[in-house]
Amino acid sequence: MNMNAARERLVVIGGDAAGMSAASQARRTKGPGELEIVAFERGHFASYSACGIPYWVGGDVGERDELIARTPEEHRARDIDLRMRTEVTEIDVAGGRVRARDVDSGAESWTSYDKLVIATGARPIRPDMPGVDAPGVHGVQTLDDGQALIDSLTRTRGRRAVVVGAGYIGVEMAEALINRGYEVTVVNRGSEPMATLDPDMGRLVHEAMEGLGITMVNDAEVTKLLTGEDGRVRAVATQDAEYPADVVVLGIGVRPETTLARAAGLPLGAHGGLLTDLAMRVRGHENIWAGGDCVEVLDLVSGQERHIALGTHANKHGQIIGTNVGGGYATFPGVVGTAVSKVCDLEIARTGLREKDARRAGLQFEAVTIESTSRAGYYPDSSPMTVKMLAERRTGRLLGVQIVGREGAGKRVDIAAVALTARMTVDQMTALDLGYAPPFSPVWDPVLVAARKASRAVQQGF
Amino acid sequence: MNMNAARERLVVIGGDAAGMSAASQARRTKGPGELEIVAFERGHFASYSACGIPYWVGGDVGERDELIARTPEEHRARDIDLRMRTEVTEIDVAGGRVRARDVDSGAESWTSYDKLVIATGARPIRPDMPGVDAPGVHGVQTLDDGQALIDSLTRTRGRRAVVVGAGYIGVEMAEALINRGYEVTVVNRGSEPMATLDPDMGRLVHEAMEGLGITMVNDAEVTKLLTGEDGRVRAVATQDAEYPADVVVLGIGVRPETTLARAAGLPLGAHGGLLTDLAMRVRGHENIWAGGDCVEVLDLVSGQERHIALGTHANKHGQIIGTNVGGGYATFPGVVGTAVSKVCDLEIARTGLREKDARRAGLQFEAVTIESTSRAGYYPDSSPMTVKMLAERRTGRLLGVQIVGREGAGKRVDIAAVALTARMTVDQMTALDLGYAPPFSPVWDPVLVAARKASRAVQQGF
Repeated sequence: MNMNAARERLVVIGGDAAGMSAASQARRTKGPGELEIVAFERGHFASYSACGIPYWVGGDVGERDELIARTPEEHRARDIDLRMRTEVTEIDVAGGRVRARDVDSGAESWTSYDKLVIATGARPIRPDMPGVDAPGVHGVQTLDDGQALIDSLTRTRGRRAVVVGAGYIGVEMAEALINRGYEVTVVNRGSEPMATLDPDMGRLVHEAMEGLGITMVNDAEVTKLLTGEDGRVRAVATQDAEYPADVVVLGIGVRPETTLARAAGLPLGAHGGLLTDLAMRVRGHENIWAGGDCVEVLDLVSGQERHIALGTHANKHGQIIGTNVGGGYATFPGVVGTAVSKVCDLEIARTGLREKDARRAGLQFEAVTIESTSRAGYYPDSSPMTVKMLAERRTGRLLGVQIVGREGAGKRVDIAAVALTARMTVDQMTALDLGYAPPFSPVWDPVLVAARKASRAVQQGF
Repeated sequence: MNMNAARERLVVIGGDAAGMSAASQARRTKGPGELEIVAFERGHFASYSACGIPYWVGGDVGERDELIARTPEEHRARDIDLRMRTEVTEIDVAGGRVRARDVDSGAESWTSYDKLVIATGARPIRPDMPGVDAPGVHGVQTLDDGQALIDSLTRTRGRRAVVVGAGYIGVEMAEALINRGYEVTVVNRGSEPMATLDPDMGRLVHEAMEGLGITMVNDAEVTKLLTGEDGRVRAVATQDAEYPADVVVLGIGVRPETTLARAAGLPLGAHGGLLTDLAMRVRGHENIWAGGDCVEVLDLVSGQERHIALGTHANKHGQIIGTNVGGGYATFPGVVGTAVSKVCDLEIARTGLREKDARRAGLQFEAVTIESTSRAGYYPDSSPMTVKMLAERRTGRLLGVQIVGREGAGKRVDIAAVALTARMTVDQMTALDLGYAPPFSPVWDPVLVAARKASRAVQQGF
């Protein structure tokens, strides 16, 4: 590197968690005299919590701006040239430059970079079917989407909502709409809600959702969205039936948004996400990093790449990228696939592999399920909890845990997340020194009870 | 072993968690035709949750019997000859027999054993000072103690309670007495309550207890208990002052109850507890096991023996002993020193080493403290949480974590308990894939925030 060269320029594509964390962390170590930072964001908002949108829609969070961690002005005050409503339309890898378009004026221009961060996020899956673009049909990926949904709910007199999809977004939106007083129907392609769980655990979610007054329709393929004379959505049609709807929320899932990266010839994986090395550099590219919802990550349990769109990973990626861009050293070892969610007072958590993931990875396993309680049985407000645990045959290595329960159930999955990271066996887990007092746990924590049963199953199966 | 011999006899001394878990687990694998099981308990109750006593006294648990996991009759129905109100007064190791005395009749007799389990528990420290045996002065170690305290509270008209000691029992009893409508003063020898925390974290407990209306007196040595003309306690005197008391609860701590073991020449450690091997056999004795509050355990972080009286360890010990006595194989690897407690809505947790433990073990370390919240900052009922983390210099190995906060704080210590068991570094911990969703955690879990700060401190100190 020529030490007399002009200062370097970092260009960031995407102004949410991964991109702006990277920019902020780079700025912490390199002042504006050393590093110019230009960030492009096509939407109206930057650095916001997309995960918080269901709680804003549901009224738990009062104001949209509470979801914004840092405003564009705050970024600019720290010498980050954040250009809002500016969409990058091309990456010229050979030329080391990106082309950006002002969304409002349509004007385009090229910006050269020394270092590039791609943080283009994910795009919601919008099925290609009649009516999907009708008024009253909403995704909930961005703050702009959330605002459009709230405006739509405010305008609509009807109180019937249909949520398409029963993953995290689907169940969280079902809760949000229940909290707003809607009659909610969830239409789900799978045999049970929460396909990130095994169906036997998804069944518990199904039952709890019905207990909350949510109508759950499983094994249902949406074929079209029917519209009224005013053009607005009026029903969701499946192969079997029609479900009247004054508003429809699509929560079918997301895919990596890698249109730009693909056009630029950057390496993509089987799930469509960018492939990076451990330092989050795009493979084969010294000066391009990528992170957040647009990349694939290594699953430390299966040893295979996955796509997981989750704010906590995006923030870690940004932190690591910014450290490396700033001349430091940090790596992202991978994930174990931890996720936690809730529907009203039902807590749902998972980490590691489901049965079908384990089979797909070629692993043989024992699976056990136990019932326990969140606190000592005699302590007030102790609530039931179901824990499912998978362990590898022969080795006894923990492969995965799923938990469904009430208060105190969800974050217990962290015990298993750390044990998976450490590649513990379920037998080792039976001796874990977990916090015990009657208001916090039975004398055998539910995770220990599951580990004991899994350990016995592995020994018998050996 | 002579396969034609009469069935073997297992004798168990002590009928609470460790002893009766051992007996029950042994019975699961050996039927009464193979193994006779005789258990001696000197008190009125067996298999109860001593940890639940403060919640029974405070009214959260309505009935004493809710704390009893299994009655003597239930044990007898499973062919365990449990002899209540029968105190073992001598172990004759050479002769393979124990002498037991019927507490009511005074009659003594010898019982021979092939295998012996010592589960004599712990005894509360009762300072040798004037007035300590007066009516109105209570320990809370056994259900008998708890019943005596409740009877005393019911009889007493006054509403002033003094708790001597500010460890777990002390603070839990302070909560119990507040819940019963008493004016509570806690008299504490240390500079801050909860000596199992570093004083800077104990200070947070101190402030919270005062906020709950508890009068906290630190740096106070109790010199005597003053009694009235009726002989009943009327005040607690320290070197500086007198604190009027209608009832006094002693919560000073416990020591291993190893009088019998000491007299029998069995090996005791520096803390007065029995020393065992990993299979929980008393060192040097093939056919004697010991577990629960009467043994010392290996601290996996410091590599040194400790004494920890905690029901969760006692249950694990009993399980392991019973498995081994029954011809199976199980070991107890040791502890990391996890404990969790609460005072009203304040949650207090710790695992691993405090600063003074680390120094005593010869370890150099960095200590960091961070403030975070239990949920995303914008989510309702997000509450503040303080996390302190110790990491070894040079290696960066996690040494300990202390947490003080509100709902959601206490059980987060389990993350650190597993990381300690796996000997993770704080840098490894920064990448942990912990459960995230706005109702459960900020996007960076408080434990991750602490790990990041600790990692930076270790790198700077290297």
